[in-house]
Amino acid sequence: MRKSEVEDGEGGLGGDDPAAMERAFEEMHVPPWKDQITFRAMFTSLVLSIVFNVIVCKLNLSTGVIPSLNVAAGLLGFAAVKAWTVMIEKCGLLKQPFTRQENTVIQTCVVASSGIAFSSGTASYLLAMSPITASQAETGNTPNNVKQLRLGWMIAFVFAVSFVGLFSIMPLRRVMILKYKLTYPSGTATAYLINSFHTPKGAKIAKKQVWVLFKAFVGSFLWAFFQWFFAAADGCGFSSFPTFGLQAYNRRFYFDFSSTYVGVGMICPYMVNISLLIGAIISWGIMWPVIESKKGHWYSADIPGNSLHGIQGYRVFLAIAMILGDGLYQVVYMAALTLSSFMQQLVHRNESEDEREGDSVEDYNESRRTEYFLKDQIPNRVAIGGYIVLALISLFVVPHIFPQLKWYQILVAYVIAPVLAFCNAYGCGLTDWSLASNYGKLAILVFSSWVGLQQGGVLAGLASCGVMMSIVSTASDLMQDFKTGYLTLSSPRSMFVSQVLGTAMGCVLSPLVFWFFYKAYNVGDPEGTFPAPYALMYRGIALLGVEGFSSLPDNCLMLAIGCFVAAVLINVLTVVLRKWESKYRIYRIIPSPMCMAIPFYLGGYFAIDMCVGSLILFVWQMNNKKQASELSPAVASGLICGDSLWGIPAAILALAGVSPPICMKFLGAAANKRVDSILGG
Amino acid sequence: MRKSEVEDGEGGLGGDDPAAMERAFEEMHVPPWKDQITFRAMFTSLVLSIVFNVIVCKLNLSTGVIPSLNVAAGLLGFAAVKAWTVMIEKCGLLKQPFTRQENTVIQTCVVASSGIAFSSGTASYLLAMSPITASQAETGNTPNNVKQLRLGWMIAFVFAVSFVGLFSIMPLRRVMILKYKLTYPSGTATAYLINSFHTPKGAKIAKKQVWVLFKAFVGSFLWAFFQWFFAAADGCGFSSFPTFGLQAYNRRFYFDFSSTYVGVGMICPYMVNISLLIGAIISWGIMWPVIESKKGHWYSADIPGNSLHGIQGYRVFLAIAMILGDGLYQVVYMAALTLSSFMQQLVHRNESEDEREGDSVEDYNESRRTEYFLKDQIPNRVAIGGYIVLALISLFVVPHIFPQLKWYQILVAYVIAPVLAFCNAYGCGLTDWSLASNYGKLAILVFSSWVGLQQGGVLAGLASCGVMMSIVSTASDLMQDFKTGYLTLSSPRSMFVSQVLGTAMGCVLSPLVFWFFYKAYNVGDPEGTFPAPYALMYRGIALLGVEGFSSLPDNCLMLAIGCFVAAVLINVLTVVLRKWESKYRIYRIIPSPMCMAIPFYLGGYFAIDMCVGSLILFVWQMNNKKQASELSPAVASGLICGDSLWGIPAAILALAGVSPPICMKFLGAAANKRVDSILGG
Repeated sequence: MRKSEVEDGEGGLGGDDPAAMERAFEEMHVPPWKDQITFRAMFTSLVLSIVFNVIVCKLNLSTGVIPSLNVAAGLLGFAAVKAWTVMIEKCGLLKQPFTRQENTVIQTCVVASSGIAFSSGTASYLLAMSPITASQAETGNTPNNVKQLRLGWMIAFVFAVSFVGLFSIMPLRRVMILKYKLTYPSGTATAYLINSFHTPKGAKIAKKQVWVLFKAFVGSFLWAFFQWFFAAADGCGFSSFPTFGLQAYNRRFYFDFSSTYVGVGMICPYMVNISLLIGAIISWGIMWPVIESKKGHWYSADIPGNSLHGIQGYRVFLAIAMILGDGLYQVVYMAALTLSSFMQQLVHRNESEDEREGDSVEDYNESRRTEYFLKDQIPNRVAIGGYIVLALISLFVVPHIFPQLKWYQILVAYVIAPVLAFCNAYGCGLTDWSLASNYGKLAILVFSSWVGLQQGGVLAGLASCGVMMSIVSTASDLMQDFKTGYLTLSSPRSMFVSQVLGTAMGCVLSPLVFWFFYKAYNVGDPEGTFPAPYALMYRGIALLGVEGFSSLPDNCLMLAIGCFVAAVLINVLTVVLRKWESKYRIYRIIPSPMCMAIPFYLGGYFAIDMCVGSLILFVWQMNNKKQASELSPAVASGLICGDSLWGIPAAILALAGVSPPICMKFLGAAANKRVDSILGG
Repeated sequence: MRKSEVEDGEGGLGGDDPAAMERAFEEMHVPPWKDQITFRAMFTSLVLSIVFNVIVCKLNLSTGVIPSLNVAAGLLGFAAVKAWTVMIEKCGLLKQPFTRQENTVIQTCVVASSGIAFSSGTASYLLAMSPITASQAETGNTPNNVKQLRLGWMIAFVFAVSFVGLFSIMPLRRVMILKYKLTYPSGTATAYLINSFHTPKGAKIAKKQVWVLFKAFVGSFLWAFFQWFFAAADGCGFSSFPTFGLQAYNRRFYFDFSSTYVGVGMICPYMVNISLLIGAIISWGIMWPVIESKKGHWYSADIPGNSLHGIQGYRVFLAIAMILGDGLYQVVYMAALTLSSFMQQLVHRNESEDEREGDSVEDYNESRRTEYFLKDQIPNRVAIGGYIVLALISLFVVPHIFPQLKWYQILVAYVIAPVLAFCNAYGCGLTDWSLASNYGKLAILVFSSWVGLQQGGVLAGLASCGVMMSIVSTASDLMQDFKTGYLTLSSPRSMFVSQVLGTAMGCVLSPLVFWFFYKAYNVGDPEGTFPAPYALMYRGIALLGVEGFSSLPDNCLMLAIGCFVAAVLINVLTVVLRKWESKYRIYRIIPSPMCMAIPFYLGGYFAIDMCVGSLILFVWQMNNKKQASELSPAVASGLICGDSLWGIPAAILALAGVSPPICMKFLGAAANKRVDSILGG
């Protein structure tokens, strides 16, 4: 027993020394795959799925920045089932102990379900079809390019497209997990977290984390509740707090007291948050004021503020250009990397295997993990058969919902999709960065220009985005979960079943939760609480596809090209520096173009929230590095969950027509005098 | 060296085991009295005096609740001089090391000077003479009962009356400190604090305390600065935050985000804060709503809200009745206690001295302390002569300023004063509670009814209050400082000189600082930031003296008598329970009538602040009792000083006519709709 090594790594999420990991679990029984999927696990998954769907939906609708929730899912799943089993055990009724495999099943199911909340595009391509988004874009606002949102067809569509991805690259799991030994950082981190919870040492840390999570959760919930009372109308309350003055507020620089985004900032890497802030400063601090000074020259002075022909057009299309530039670069780069890595694997396979087998501890871990990974097989014919059957169903269903998209177009999508799914799963395994939405955007461009404006190309493009994104996204999620399962000795079969169940949950929950928000709030209003920034952007991409660049305001194309090129150059620079400059490692402080682009449209307020999160984490790490790395994910998860959960009672209150009693309003000194004289008189 | 005993007590303010204290200092040189009063000490004292005068003035003008600042003065004095000496030492220029005697001199000087800020009555009896207070009371608003405030006569008056007290009971210091061994809790605590700073062990704690104090100070200052931006007008900003809703806000229940009062709450005993809250609930939660429902019956419905003939009258006179009831009870009880304790001392003197001399450690401490206490004498003839000369000057000056008060009346005051001063100094030695303001209030009643309304009795009463309060207050302060000096081996002569210098500083600073606030803000406006609650109360007492009870609104006299009796009964109950019920010690949870009366006039907001302070302290003590007792006084001092210091730039900005840019306003939903329609249109 190499205890010291286990001890060293007890606290970190990914910092465990994996060497002796499986020795610590040697004595523990691994239940057969059917016993890994228990009723309590599924019930917990359902509850957590609801929570996570609300969280993801809220994030989607407010800014579209979504952190990796794997760790939070693992932690909450542990907390829930552990509490339950401890209680039952005290009553003497515990039949089956809580295992790490069960924990992994919950995590997989919840991640699958909340993955659908993202890939179902309720806040992006689906919302982009709605009249409210169409009316903001002016062009393309024709009957066959707009579709009224209805719960029925949304659920049907999501069901039709979401399961195909699970079968697309399943036969490749052995290659990717066992042969290429891809990292999948999130999946690995979650596996180590779950492993650490279930070692005797780990339980103590877990208890502390759960307690901290609970405190952060309750605090965040109560804070959101308190804030509610002061937000009687739009522009009231803490979310409109002009922290840096009214001038800065009008340029969307303020701290909006959202504990969700403070938590998100604590989970996201420093560089993401700083990139967001830099993007906000460049756009709202420099570019927009300059462009606004050209009002009347570059664009007509008397068009409404949210028209794409005015300043809003610059915001949206420059953001799109930057996102597309980054996305395309990533796709090309990843394809090249995949290819070269693939080639290397083929050439050097034997050598590298020899090298690996030199370490006996590594060998023990590996042999045990491989044994369980290969135990329950899923035959290839099931996978391929499943893919074909589901694709056929989709071919039949989707054109029924969107007559604009023809069956042969969908067929083309399904032929290309597995290749892209593999690319994405491979890239994600290397970098933890899923590019699903980029493949979706490419699909929009391709299919909307193929169909054309007259035949409803906007809608066709957005629908094809859904088809493509769902496959690519679920495929990489599944592979990520296989990695987690591999590291926790969970059966691939239980992983797969759990993923299927989670996907089914997600297909029902995600449209439902979205419907809830959609009915309760003014979703899609650029000035409101839920601007759903991606909806307009996705529609903008579709419009580019059908119309070309003619509809843009003056100089917008030029600036957009500039942004596109800048995004590519920044990426190239990063790669070059990473390769050739290893002394100061400057590449680490080069901002990400994708992150910089999001505040182009939204402004800097959430970037400031997230930087506050970074700051808290930074100070915490300075004071107590060990504690910070142990507890900060728990605090962040608590902050996000508590604040987001308040979204449910808040939406119910809004639906019931109960509005908050007080408006906390911020007035300039002059406006205040006017108000006082009116209220006093 | 009984090191372990020193270690045990290293952190506590009053928790040191005094047994071996002086052994730890055995080797340290005690400088002669003239060297204890250094230039750096006096300079530090001056700076701190300014800070403390601002703090006390602000507290006086906003609620009148002032915590004991001895500990803060000791701590800040240490921080300042230590920083200076360390710096100088590094340059190799340090001539004289920083001793605890020097620290005590600073503390004494600062406390003396800020004592004047209280006893000069700028926010009570002097402000009560001003037209703004007179106009709120309606009756007694005649030319010879009102005096326009001017800086010149205020300084002259304060100088004339403030020094007399220092000489009044000085000859009794040996009796009170050495023979009766009175405790003087604040003085003792400060002495232990200073001693602990200057032992080698103590310096580490002191460093931590100073660092925490600095952080709290900066945080509190920045928070106050930040708040400023949002307070463009009255009713704007964090100080008008309807934390518990608008209904509760209208009844003055809200948390006003004042870090000063949170800090004050951390220093004050739990029971004081809870008493304030209970008082607020009884008055603003129950009594005033009931009385307001009698509007039109008990008092006319069409008089302005701040008239003493309306609801305001009930608030003021019920508060006065309760304060007078408590005050009179305390005076009588203290007189009885003093007498009985005095008699016991005379009878049992020899026995008790024998008992004490049994312990040799105690003996060593005592012999050393007594040696230094008796070293530098101040002859009795100086004391008595000083008193007579200064009283004569006062007899000449005061009637010049207030022609309403005749010289023989002042003479009477100066004949009675030393007796009352002794009573108060003795009581303060036992309980830490100075009753100076109660003696002042009695003087108001006596002299205003003696002079009568026609001859300017209101003004005469208020002026006599100043004469009496100054003597009684400075006498007990001096004795408190003698105790601190005794415990730190400081010379009584240096204590006395420091007290004289501090008093002189206070006599100049206190009216100046007040003048600053008076010119910058609307001081005395009951709805404003600085309502100066005591001004109207003191004038109310004077009006009672000259007019009797005829001018009160219906049933007010009856209710006031009820409050008076209740105050006495509560006190009697406390004493009875303290004596006869020792099992649960219920007497500890009986609220103080004096504290309960203050929110009668002001409302509950500052009580809520202070309870928040209590809560913070309580939670802190639960988590880490040792750390809480070590650091909470430093945090509290930092909070108070930082917030109060912002008062200076804020007042300068107000004088310069710079108003904050933003109004954070709180509107009901209906009012908000009106405002939106107006601003939007």
